[in-house]
Amino acid sequence: MLMIELEDNEKEPLYEQIYEQIKHQIQMGDLPQKTKLPSARKLAAYLDVSRNTVDFAYGQLAAEGYIESRPRSGFYVCQVEELAALDIHVETEEVRGGEKKAQMPYDFSPSGTDMEYFPYHVWRKLLKEIMINDNSELFQKGDPRGDYELRRSIMYYLRQSRGVHVHASQIVIGAGMENLLFLLRQTFGKKCVVGLENPVYTNACGILRELGFGIRPVAMDHNGLNVDDLRKIDADLAYVTPAHQYPTGVIMPAGRRGQLLRWAREKEERYIIEDDYDSEFRYHGKPIPALQGLDSSEKVIYMGTFSRAIAPAIRVGYIVLPPKLLDLYHKNVTAFSCSVSRIDQKVLTLFLSEGHFERHLNRMRNLYKEKHDLLLECIRKNIPGASVSGEGAGVHLIVNFHIREKEEFEQKLRQQGVVIYPLSFYYIEGTPREEQYILGFTRMKKEDMIEGTRRIGNILSMIK
Amino acid sequence: MLMIELEDNEKEPLYEQIYEQIKHQIQMGDLPQKTKLPSARKLAAYLDVSRNTVDFAYGQLAAEGYIESRPRSGFYVCQVEELAALDIHVETEEVRGGEKKAQMPYDFSPSGTDMEYFPYHVWRKLLKEIMINDNSELFQKGDPRGDYELRRSIMYYLRQSRGVHVHASQIVIGAGMENLLFLLRQTFGKKCVVGLENPVYTNACGILRELGFGIRPVAMDHNGLNVDDLRKIDADLAYVTPAHQYPTGVIMPAGRRGQLLRWAREKEERYIIEDDYDSEFRYHGKPIPALQGLDSSEKVIYMGTFSRAIAPAIRVGYIVLPPKLLDLYHKNVTAFSCSVSRIDQKVLTLFLSEGHFERHLNRMRNLYKEKHDLLLECIRKNIPGASVSGEGAGVHLIVNFHIREKEEFEQKLRQQGVVIYPLSFYYIEGTPREEQYILGFTRMKKEDMIEGTRRIGNILSMIK
Repeated sequence: MLMIELEDNEKEPLYEQIYEQIKHQIQMGDLPQKTKLPSARKLAAYLDVSRNTVDFAYGQLAAEGYIESRPRSGFYVCQVEELAALDIHVETEEVRGGEKKAQMPYDFSPSGTDMEYFPYHVWRKLLKEIMINDNSELFQKGDPRGDYELRRSIMYYLRQSRGVHVHASQIVIGAGMENLLFLLRQTFGKKCVVGLENPVYTNACGILRELGFGIRPVAMDHNGLNVDDLRKIDADLAYVTPAHQYPTGVIMPAGRRGQLLRWAREKEERYIIEDDYDSEFRYHGKPIPALQGLDSSEKVIYMGTFSRAIAPAIRVGYIVLPPKLLDLYHKNVTAFSCSVSRIDQKVLTLFLSEGHFERHLNRMRNLYKEKHDLLLECIRKNIPGASVSGEGAGVHLIVNFHIREKEEFEQKLRQQGVVIYPLSFYYIEGTPREEQYILGFTRMKKEDMIEGTRRIGNILSMIK
Repeated sequence: MLMIELEDNEKEPLYEQIYEQIKHQIQMGDLPQKTKLPSARKLAAYLDVSRNTVDFAYGQLAAEGYIESRPRSGFYVCQVEELAALDIHVETEEVRGGEKKAQMPYDFSPSGTDMEYFPYHVWRKLLKEIMINDNSELFQKGDPRGDYELRRSIMYYLRQSRGVHVHASQIVIGAGMENLLFLLRQTFGKKCVVGLENPVYTNACGILRELGFGIRPVAMDHNGLNVDDLRKIDADLAYVTPAHQYPTGVIMPAGRRGQLLRWAREKEERYIIEDDYDSEFRYHGKPIPALQGLDSSEKVIYMGTFSRAIAPAIRVGYIVLPPKLLDLYHKNVTAFSCSVSRIDQKVLTLFLSEGHFERHLNRMRNLYKEKHDLLLECIRKNIPGASVSGEGAGVHLIVNFHIREKEEFEQKLRQQGVVIYPLSFYYIEGTPREEQYILGFTRMKKEDMIEGTRRIGNILSMIK
């Protein structure tokens, strides 16, 4: 007879106890293969439980393949030789990423968004409108490129604000730059070599590298990416940020744009990736129109994001594919659904089409302009001798403190709770002749800017 | 002098008109390179506008690189030879994906979710709680694996409901199976060959193929994937759905699970991908525990999703990496943020931790069980001679109508507005000896099931 001990236990029903104990004996080899189990009727009588209870336990064991029923004979143990050690202890520790980095009080980080003006109430209202039963269609799978209504709203925005020549059918929505560059790689369907501005937006470089793109740094001059140098390497793609180069802040002038387009036209397979990542933030003059709007030969892949203008957590970006590439996309990318939740897509559609985005952008632009101007003023006042570049747009400044004792300077900054970002970190290869630093201002409080620059000034006056 | 005509036009400010006309003349070559522009003072006097207006237009032209300022001399036209044809007409049509497929009245599709019981009010309530200013941290970038709180909630769920041995640190969140398989490919960092059940979940096969995995179909028998056949091909990975094989509904018994684990242990680099896609839906007996729970040698990559249990639009899935692979993941996947919006992550965390998911699952299980039982009954009553398999779990049945005139049958079905899904469609290679059909029931109304099966029965009685 089977060794089964039942406890009158509220937590574990009787059938569960029978099931668990027989399973355990089979796994441990105590009930070898081909052993015949007692009939359900007999076992029920022996254990003093109802016949149903045993039937249920046997049924589950059979469904999981521990025992099998042979017609007109009964239940037999199946062959399950190799399941001995079951209760392994997962020892992996929650180490990486689990702990938060200690926050430094004066962190001039160039990433992140000031959430003070985030229109929570609008977002809540839109979500409330969407989350109703009538919208059940929204919870099924959608167009892999993203919902048409969102692509249309983005089309209008890009035409009007960025001078992009675009039809909604050319737009593909994705969860962040990672996803968009991935889709691009799938579209090309082969290994491509990409020339990148050096220094560069390190995230883009890292993503391209991990996606298997060949990475070739191309020197920058005061007009942006050097097209003569680009021509020397055998690149299929050029990744550029013409409206406001990241991180140097250089605006690519019309002449250089023309040269770059000519480079692309020289070979059938060449394309330009235009990352228009922070074009919304220009504080003087009109926005610089997109390179894509100057392109008459279907050579520019335009890329944009809402992460910067709305919030980094809003993982919605888009690419605009030139018609030639759009055909290739439809041919090579067939198995992937849109990576953005349709609810998020719908909120964003309404946010754009009802004018909230424009209003939000105006407020953010004013806020960032104030912070930009204040940081400029603080640097001039508190850090004599520092030279600033890349101003007038974006969400950070480039500052040259003209120092030699780089290590000592950076060590003292850390001691004083100040974090600024060396430009050399953004170089794919080589280092700048003279170190410069990125000072971002989006997430910085105004009083911290004043105190932070004062501390930098003090340190400089000590070590100089 | 420049040819500039100003209109007193409310829509277009004067500086904008000056800027646009000079830009156009430069682009058209009417103002050749090195042409000296009139001084801002002179042009302002000539056009009878304020000096500021011209300064503003010149400033913008200079910022965009159409003109340049030479110290103590004035503004000169830059070299912009190649920007002639600007206003290209984007002709791409919104063809693909734009139109909706005509809905057939009796569509037994196996995909999609019945949204009747979706807890809109709960979701709205949770969103409302989240979208407050205090949560501004939530709008910044998070852990690339997904937020710890969500991973912990999933950990508890998997331990309790699926017998998975897991720590939160092993879980990686992603926007759907596409993203998770992509992350897996990045983790391996090399081309892997994967053995797949044949027939198979076609989406998984398509995604793996487009991601560059080598695809090898492996025959199924009544216990699932045939491990002897798997051993004959040189695969690094086996993709299986042991709890309820898609599409056949076979449950992999304990003995076969052991064989499969042994196969994986035979070589260092071998792994099993367990896709536990619809394990929540089993209508008789306890759920079938995950294969992962039987694995003591870090060989199983467990994969799950909330798309089926909540809604396809909720693009949240997860993988559980065995500790060995987790190290590789941290080494090889460094540039990718989590593809799921943090707001969605937070809603889902609360949905799980506050018990809503369990309640929702119970309601859905009851709803689907009713539909499952009704469909079974309808087939028995309305389609005499049909044999059903794969019942008792999941969201579809496999039906063999024992017909020879396949084409005629399917044509007549379409004429009658009935859509059922041939099993042969799910074969990577070969075809089944006898055609069978998938009849899904999630999105089907009960009265349509009755009428749909009646129509199938009528057609069969006509052509047999």
